[in-house]
Amino acid sequence: MMFETLIRTIPDYPKPGIQFRDITTLLQDRQGFAAAIDALGQHYQGQVFDKVVAMEARGFIIGAALAVKLGAGFVPARKPGKLPWATIAQPYQLEYGSDALEVHQDAIQSGERILLVDDLIATGGTALAAVALVRQLGGVVEQAAFVIDLPALGGMQQLAAARVEGFALCQFAGH
Amino acid sequence: MMFETLIRTIPDYPKPGIQFRDITTLLQDRQGFAAAIDALGQHYQGQVFDKVVAMEARGFIIGAALAVKLGAGFVPARKPGKLPWATIAQPYQLEYGSDALEVHQDAIQSGERILLVDDLIATGGTALAAVALVRQLGGVVEQAAFVIDLPALGGMQQLAAARVEGFALCQFAGH
Repeated sequence: MMFETLIRTIPDYPKPGIQFRDITTLLQDRQGFAAAIDALGQHYQGQVFDKVVAMEARGFIIGAALAVKLGAGFVPARKPGKLPWATIAQPYQLEYGSDALEVHQDAIQSGERILLVDDLIATGGTALAAVALVRQLGGVVEQAAFVIDLPALGGMQQLAAARVEGFALCQFAGH
Repeated sequence: MMFETLIRTIPDYPKPGIQFRDITTLLQDRQGFAAAIDALGQHYQGQVFDKVVAMEARGFIIGAALAVKLGAGFVPARKPGKLPWATIAQPYQLEYGSDALEVHQDAIQSGERILLVDDLIATGGTALAAVALVRQLGGVVEQAAFVIDLPALGGMQQLAAARVEGFALCQFAGH
């Protein structure tokens, strides 16, 4: 399936010059959503993951569906202050300023095999923060899955430099 | 499975007197998470839903996994300002103040059968806002699924008064 044909592009959102890739049109298409999760599941066929770690909030949608497909547990990586128990945090840089991701301290046990999942990879900053959190808890993360890759922004290379192999269902040129 | 045994209770969070029910311990348990989605799927066996509508952010986790299980599309109901395209909004009351939910205007077609999904039902205010959004777009919503019901807060009765049948995997006494 050509997943990019089911993704809506919104010009100049959230600011001029940005082409926003909106996956809600893919998600709300029952055949498209099923095909996307099937294609991700097939890519990892034969591999065993203890847990999927997915990033708030759109990453939850792809990550939770894929976790069930793969028979893995699910760990939410959330914005600061959203998780109710003891957490560890990892800051990361944005274009202007910074943000952080948190996971519960008991979310991952040492040696567990983790698949990282988000809807989109751009510069890779969020994904690298999640990798750092998983590794701080002793988890093994060597694979990361996305619906969309924006190759011009170099996120996959950043992941590769951190010894994580990224995979995306489709790519869009530009930012 | 006794799902309540996999849910962590955090006393006095986010404020004194509240017992917070933390589903992350259920989600990160691969067998528990799979069993929860299986149990919800079995509850709706034989029924056809075009789409699952789930509420940001924990609702996304349960709703997306259940949508794939049921072969339905997925529609995110989000906090104001998070969706990139044209939306409709529905305000709802909180204990102090108010909030709102939004969905894209093209998220639901007239006559589509919708299953509402969230992680927890308390007073039902969020769920009723989502029901109103679905009906404004012409969708048919008669069923709503949750992991946790807090029956003391009466949300299921509120849903019933709106002609929506709620179902939850487990209940907790108190607030």
